[in-house]
Amino acid sequence: MMSSTEPSLVECVGTHVDVDRLSRDVERTGTFGAVDGEGHGRTALTADDANAAAREYLVDRLEAADCSVRIDAVGNVVGRWVPPSADPEAAAVASGSHLDSVVQGGIFDGPLGVYAALEGVRAMQDAVDEGVSFERPLEVVSFTEEEGHRFSDGLLGSSVAVGHTSVAEALALTDADGVSLEDALEEAGFRGEGRFDAAEWNDWLELHVEQGRTLERAGMPVGIVTSIAGTARCRVDIEGEANHAGTTAMDERADALVAAADVVRAVERVATDVAGPNGRAVGTVGCLDIDPGAVNVVPGRSMLKLDLRDPDADGVERLVDGVETALERVESERPVTTTLERTHDAPPIPMQDGCRSVIADAADVLDVETMPVHSGAGHDTMRVGTCTDVGMLFVPSRDGVSHSPREWTDWADCARGTRVLAGGLATLAGGIDQ
Amino acid sequence: MMSSTEPSLVECVGTHVDVDRLSRDVERTGTFGAVDGEGHGRTALTADDANAAAREYLVDRLEAADCSVRIDAVGNVVGRWVPPSADPEAAAVASGSHLDSVVQGGIFDGPLGVYAALEGVRAMQDAVDEGVSFERPLEVVSFTEEEGHRFSDGLLGSSVAVGHTSVAEALALTDADGVSLEDALEEAGFRGEGRFDAAEWNDWLELHVEQGRTLERAGMPVGIVTSIAGTARCRVDIEGEANHAGTTAMDERADALVAAADVVRAVERVATDVAGPNGRAVGTVGCLDIDPGAVNVVPGRSMLKLDLRDPDADGVERLVDGVETALERVESERPVTTTLERTHDAPPIPMQDGCRSVIADAADVLDVETMPVHSGAGHDTMRVGTCTDVGMLFVPSRDGVSHSPREWTDWADCARGTRVLAGGLATLAGGIDQ
Repeated sequence: MMSSTEPSLVECVGTHVDVDRLSRDVERTGTFGAVDGEGHGRTALTADDANAAAREYLVDRLEAADCSVRIDAVGNVVGRWVPPSADPEAAAVASGSHLDSVVQGGIFDGPLGVYAALEGVRAMQDAVDEGVSFERPLEVVSFTEEEGHRFSDGLLGSSVAVGHTSVAEALALTDADGVSLEDALEEAGFRGEGRFDAAEWNDWLELHVEQGRTLERAGMPVGIVTSIAGTARCRVDIEGEANHAGTTAMDERADALVAAADVVRAVERVATDVAGPNGRAVGTVGCLDIDPGAVNVVPGRSMLKLDLRDPDADGVERLVDGVETALERVESERPVTTTLERTHDAPPIPMQDGCRSVIADAADVLDVETMPVHSGAGHDTMRVGTCTDVGMLFVPSRDGVSHSPREWTDWADCARGTRVLAGGLATLAGGIDQ
Repeated sequence: MMSSTEPSLVECVGTHVDVDRLSRDVERTGTFGAVDGEGHGRTALTADDANAAAREYLVDRLEAADCSVRIDAVGNVVGRWVPPSADPEAAAVASGSHLDSVVQGGIFDGPLGVYAALEGVRAMQDAVDEGVSFERPLEVVSFTEEEGHRFSDGLLGSSVAVGHTSVAEALALTDADGVSLEDALEEAGFRGEGRFDAAEWNDWLELHVEQGRTLERAGMPVGIVTSIAGTARCRVDIEGEANHAGTTAMDERADALVAAADVVRAVERVATDVAGPNGRAVGTVGCLDIDPGAVNVVPGRSMLKLDLRDPDADGVERLVDGVETALERVESERPVTTTLERTHDAPPIPMQDGCRSVIADAADVLDVETMPVHSGAGHDTMRVGTCTDVGMLFVPSRDGVSHSPREWTDWADCARGTRVLAGGLATLAGGIDQ
């Protein structure tokens, strides 16, 4: 549900977006788990010390902005602001992102979306002081473990919020050291109660860095996401036979690494084929472990983790099929056995026209140029989009780089994106310029 | 230098080889660092608790056999027995192997050669009681870190004993945790003084498990080694660019793992080409690490460790050249840079006719069948062979397996090999059957 855009309302809220307030929060979040070296890197994995500090800082900032803060059983954080004139029983308009990072990630991926949402709320509060009123409560959200670098394959908190994953399943997940999410959240002080239900939100908007080059190449400050790629993740295990590197003749080997090399190249070939000249299919082997991993031993086992994406569900299946065919071929050509396990599936999500036009209208009013963009990256919005209306905005990534200390977005672009986000939230909250 | 084989001397010494005495020592050594599970596995890395216990046990057994024990600066252990009639100033006849293992290795690889040498000495001592006399001292040797699984690329103690590596270089080597060999040996109580000089030995014999299938297939109990393959080890680093697995199009990637897959397959192809139908060239990528190693990140860096072997020095160079050509090709086809560093070189070693015929003659006298074999595996004998006359014997490996808890050699074959070794040592020590 949404109201029509009120030009003067959007202008009023947009004017109150304060890039200094926003950048202070994002930069401060970047100090938790900051990594040495060039750029602005941070490592803040779910519920580790850096992530706990980032969460505590968020709680402080939400409370400073008159938001009531709740934590759910899987550590999702929600700060709720009920505008003076709003109906507290009305379905809220929600916005946010995540505070966790990849190992040696950047400071924008996640925190920008959380603090842009909070900045939107603060701008709306400033607008209230000027006589604007809103009908719906606003909720600023930080989802647990979007990146999936400690306990899961990612989108963990939002998967729980839409009922895709149960609270019990999520809490029982363990990290590489065998620590459960439940124990880690307890330790960090962020094991709350209950489960936030994304279906209760009226609308959801997320601002995020693009993590690609489309906006930068087009010289556009803001992208309006049309679709988010579907993702299939697979684990491939290859079993050969470990043996002595000096005494085992080339034709007597069952080398699990050579077979893995065949698979790595097959993933590249299959993704290139499915993408064709204009497609957006991608296929990546991001993890490869071999056993025993000694210079003078023929590898006996290898384990690969694959990430396969396409804007269409059909394309995702073609990628998985192509990999399965490649594995059959490897088994027929080499004395190894292979197994493929699909560990994670997120279907492609088209963005609703409603939220897209609210964002586009707000950008028009604020005189911010936009363009439609596809998201190759997965986002919590994919999960939220399975149970409510969603929209998503991108701001440019310098050189297209993300998941790296080199990740950077100019603050002027962050400000433009946040103004559009705030205008969109104000519209969706049913603002009336009195 | 050697004497002609005296049939009755060899028979007398061979008769006194006691397989129970031998198996007790080898099996006891296998208890230090024993790994759970099927087979007979052990992990005893240089100067760790298991290796220290194995060393202490060896010192006890040497002393129990009237050997005077010395430890040199890099932890090589020598037990010296001067037969009653021998000239203590005469150049010794030496034999032995190593006590360290690979991770989850077997109990025969190394310890069999050390204790077969000691059993040979004990058999000669028994023969002395029957009136046999010998001209030369005998030395039973355990070299430090043959396998190279903690501080080095292997053959460490023997490299120091032949002057290929200095004591200072060796002691300064560090393990993955930054512990130096010097500190580890001090801690284990095996940091001795001085440097054993292999050039002072008159001859050297080593008994080892084959680690291949040649003897088993031929149904032969003992192999007489004709040559040991030369080995080149290389480290290859590939630098691409880490990026987001969802947002980086296939044709915009600089994927360091896909480039590494090209290299892995090139190593296989080059080794197969150099080997041809009857050659013994082998090429292995035993280690492959990628960075950052996350499922949703295109790998930005990869590091491979290569092991290239051939019986001829020329063959080794053809292997390295082939890999270098493949790297150039990878660089021309993909936006990555590659570097190759040669980290370890051990030239092929042909076995001297002298020691080979001493072993063959002893086997004839003892009615043990033998066949000539090539060693694809490297051994300390490669190093010792650079400065004195050397010979090497193999006993069969069940299914050709080694570097595994499944490594196994029947005790009857161990006994046959040890009898031939003892007969050879007795001959080389100038035994006279009085």
